[in-house]
Amino acid sequence: MKLIIAIVQDKDTHRLLSALTQEGFRATKLSSTGGFLREGNTTLLMGVDDEKVEDILRIIKSTCRAREQLVTPLSPMGGPADSYIPYPVEITVGGAIIFVLQVERFEQF
Amino acid sequence: MKLIIAIVQDKDTHRLLSALTQEGFRATKLSSTGGFLREGNTTLLMGVDDEKVEDILRIIKSTCRAREQLVTPLSPMGGPADSYIPYPVEITVGGAIIFVLQVERFEQF
Amino acid sequence: MKLIIAIVQDKDTHRLLSALTQEGFRATKLSSTGGFLREGNTTLLMGVDDEKVEDILRIIKSTCRAREQLVTPLSPMGGPADSYIPYPVEITVGGAIIFVLQVERFEQF
Ligand code: NI
Ligand code: NI
Ligand code: NI
Repeated sequence: MKLIIAIVQDKDTHRLLSALTQEGFRATKLSSTGGFLREGNTTLLMGVDDEKVEDILRIIKSTCRAREQLVTPLSPMGGPADSYIPYPVEITVGGAIIFVLQVERFEQF
Repeated sequence: MKLIIAIVQDKDTHRLLSALTQEGFRATKLSSTGGFLREGNTTLLMGVDDEKVEDILRIIKSTCRAREQLVTPLSPMGGPADSYIPYPVEITVGGAIIFVLQVERFEQF
Repeated sequence: MKLIIAIVQDKDTHRLLSALTQEGFRATKLSSTGGFLREGNTTLLMGVDDEKVEDILRIIKSTCRAREQLVTPLSPMGGPADSYIPYPVEITVGGAIIFVLQVERFEQF
């Protein structure tokens, strides 16, 4: 058995947990901040059989991987709103860091 | 040395920590939710010598294991209170998931 | 690769994270309480290459290790303030517990 520790962005957490549940996996959520990803991330703990590790990684990758997103900024605060022409900019969102650890013993009471 | 990661229900945490302290063990609490146990669980980290793992598991089992509990529901909201006869129902509470990991190195400063 | 789990006091966390960042390391913060250190600690997760473990331990030691601190208590509440002569007392602050775990697999998406 393996323990998977995954650090993902808050905004991807709901989608990831839905996908995990749909395939019969469960995760425990720890509230976390900082680190590789900017503020507002979530750390997930998942215990899985060795042969399911690839499934979990695939699900995390498909829901959380870093990708470009077009965002239209709001009118700049304090600026003259009528002369402001909003245009979309591309930012990187998402991303995931995953540690897979060997579990020496697993118990469930 | 081992690192024990235990996920238990919030309602069992106080009793578990008391029992651990009484036998000279210490645990660090991480706030957590979801996963195998329903909302409101706590993740505990405990570093212990190899030969103490059984003691910790025994304490967790005796304070947190899943068990039946009789609960008398409150009068249903909005229903006619005077015609409501409360009767106890059996629900499952508690439960614990425990991962034991090998610690390659331990330091205390 | 190793996963370093460090439990440090809240009051040392900012200084530790600054020192880590300055040397190019990143950490994910989990809010935690209790355990070896008194209330108000933080659990940090750091994934590092094997040969960087010593660097991380050195940084933690230099910013977080238990040390004596002179504290001048405030006037005791409710006591006669004008007859109170404050004198500094020495208390122990800081301290860190560190677990180094072998990472079987590391992924970043
Ligand atoms: Ni968060
Ligand atoms: Ni909780
Ligand atoms: Ni804290």
